Amino acid sequence: MNSSFTFFIPTRLIFGAGRLKELVRTQYLPGMKALVVIGANGAMHRYGYLDIVISHLEAKGVDSVVYDRIQPNPLSRHVDEGAKVARDNGCDFVLGLGGGSTIDSAKSIAVMATNSGQYWEYIVGGSGGKKIPLHRALPIVAIPTTAGTGTEVDPWTVITNSDSHEKIGWGRDDTYPVLAIVDPELMLSVPPKTTAYTGMDAFFHAVEAYLSKVNQPASDLLALEAINLISHYLPRAVEDSHDLEARTKLAWASTAAGFCESLSSCISQHSLEHAISAFYPEVPHGAGLTMLSLAYFSFLAGHSPERFPAMARAMGEDVENLNDYSKATLFINALERLIAKVGLDTEKMSDYGIVPEDFENLAHNAFDTMGGLFRVTPVKMSEDDVIRIFKAAYE
Amino acid sequence: MNSSFTFFIPTRLIFGAGRLKELVRTQYLPGMKALVVIGANGAMHRYGYLDIVISHLEAKGVDSVVYDRIQPNPLSRHVDEGAKVARDNGCDFVLGLGGGSTIDSAKSIAVMATNSGQYWEYIVGGSGGKKIPLHRALPIVAIPTTAGTGTEVDPWTVITNSDSHEKIGWGRDDTYPVLAIVDPELMLSVPPKTTAYTGMDAFFHAVEAYLSKVNQPASDLLALEAINLISHYLPRAVEDSHDLEARTKLAWASTAAGFCESLSSCISQHSLEHAISAFYPEVPHGAGLTMLSLAYFSFLAGHSPERFPAMARAMGEDVENLNDYSKATLFINALERLIAKVGLDTEKMSDYGIVPEDFENLAHNAFDTMGGLFRVTPVKMSEDDVIRIFKAAYE
Repeated sequence: MNSSFTFFIPTRLIFGAGRLKELVRTQYLPGMKALVVIGANGAMHRYGYLDIVISHLEAKGVDSVVYDRIQPNPLSRHVDEGAKVARDNGCDFVLGLGGGSTIDSAKSIAVMATNSGQYWEYIVGGSGGKKIPLHRALPIVAIPTTAGTGTEVDPWTVITNSDSHEKIGWGRDDTYPVLAIVDPELMLSVPPKTTAYTGMDAFFHAVEAYLSKVNQPASDLLALEAINLISHYLPRAVEDSHDLEARTKLAWASTAAGFCESLSSCISQHSLEHAISAFYPEVPHGAGLTMLSLAYFSFLAGHSPERFPAMARAMGEDVENLNDYSKATLFINALERLIAKVGLDTEKMSDYGIVPEDFENLAHNAFDTMGGLFRVTPVKMSEDDVIRIFKAAYE
Repeated sequence: MNSSFTFFIPTRLIFGAGRLKELVRTQYLPGMKALVVIGANGAMHRYGYLDIVISHLEAKGVDSVVYDRIQPNPLSRHVDEGAKVARDNGCDFVLGLGGGSTIDSAKSIAVMATNSGQYWEYIVGGSGGKKIPLHRALPIVAIPTTAGTGTEVDPWTVITNSDSHEKIGWGRDDTYPVLAIVDPELMLSVPPKTTAYTGMDAFFHAVEAYLSKVNQPASDLLALEAINLISHYLPRAVEDSHDLEARTKLAWASTAAGFCESLSSCISQHSLEHAISAFYPEVPHGAGLTMLSLAYFSFLAGHSPERFPAMARAMGEDVENLNDYSKATLFINALERLIAKVGLDTEKMSDYGIVPEDFENLAHNAFDTMGGLFRVTPVKMSEDDVIRIFKAAYE
């Protein structure tokens, strides 16, 4: 185990089926006027979740203003727009309701509601202005409706600048949500494909946090638990959207992987994927990671197999009596089977319009915008290595 | 797994050998004038830890006042006295340096530094006045020098009223330390007997949290990890005080068990032990738990064996191909061997002056002062059951 680390997760998490209704009686709402941030696709209206949240807030005397323009791979211009809505309406906290894009946007809007200028001026990496926010963000409440990013219990927010093709993550102590309500019942409406994409995103958070050089004992435990749960329950939830037991296990796995993001970190697979979806914003994040994963983790396992056997064991593989390399290969094989079981084995980069001529640009972008994650990756990688991984993933 | 729970641990933990020195550069000290709370036995002077902490604070421009009267099984009158010292000197935070008694006292002093009256007026249970503190406690910094209570990452503080023979635990959101520095190097000076007592305390926190009806997935993982580490490394640290690897594993196990105290809870073994040390304050808490444990857990395993096999497995036992009752017995056997390995198998209640005539009083006291823990214990217990456990532990 890494024997020197910090542990800091200040978010208050309320977890359980049916617990959304506790909004009505919680003493932990951080303000009296909420900016409620939701996605542009209408799902929060359609499933009635927005009405429920607003009426629960009203019952506590909390006013709401809705900002509803967030897209998958959310954009910095919507952060700036949402922050203006918050300021113009005197909102004193921000509530993100939806998937990771929405909650990440809520976090970034909370920062910009109290700080001047444009969001991209504060981004560290790429063309970001590296300004330091002078004021504390508005408090954030997170209510996820997918089991994927785990962003409800971590400080990270990933936003895309569509002008410059940059998708960059960032976070501070005040971008941890103060309150997160994870209610698996809200996830029963997620369609199979999105269930698979988001579940694989959570899976890779756990895998990357486990492999990261800044792993620590608590995140190791949580990561192996998430790997175990996702590999066993994700196929069930893809098969039957209304399997509440599977949804509950996956919700916990996703939140556990979110803890791992706070305690350990992603590694460079996320840099590679961010490059892809910065240039091809229609690629769902979980699809991008899944398409890269066999090539990416084969590269890592070839150079640094030490931590792979425990992950294979967590996926239910029998790793006894094998040498380290074979044990690592077991993980890759189990991952390949999982991808097939959740119906993502037919995803191809070419289907999204990605062409091999892009790889040099993508590799450069990965280092330029999210270079920090390469420093915590257990194997040193060059831009040429990354191009080779893109090529192997493409074939 | 329990699938409905809350998770809230706002403490910022800095963990690692040699990391006490980060006091000099941390940005997270919560004030400019510290009440430094230490034990009355002079150990913090003798080992030089007090001088180091004060000079680190000075280097950051933080003044200190020392309150040095805390005893094992700490007393409410010292809480009131320490709070007066804090008020009289205008301290704006409280730093507990030492074992669990010291840090618990620091928490309670922090509450009373900002609230009027006497500490016992605020205690819930027994003869406590059940008043609600009107003011937020002063912020608390915890620097443990033993691996035992885990109090550095939980809200609980256990204080004894020597007049009424009551030892009662209590906590609120503002009694979580805001900052905890766990530096295993500070634990190298702990003598073997205290190492064994405190290590077994941490062990039972993990065991009880795992068995508690309010267990949850994150505390289950941490509890089994702590049970595993303590059963393997406590004998080493008792054998060789200066085994830094063992000290580090035990420090993490103790903190992990402290997380379990925040996420799940102790069960009634702690009620029974608090009764013992309320009447016999010279009984070290870990000794009291250890003397009770074989009788107490045999009773639980007989009625509710379900969660015992996983604990036996965490202790390194081979639980395959056995029925549930035999698996549970494996845990009891492994516990008995651990107690012997750490040199506590010769501890006897009679050595501390406890006599069987006390048992009725002790059982009554356990329910009266710490009755809440019986409600989260997986087996319903009557006062007669508790008397039988005391008797079995005595024989």
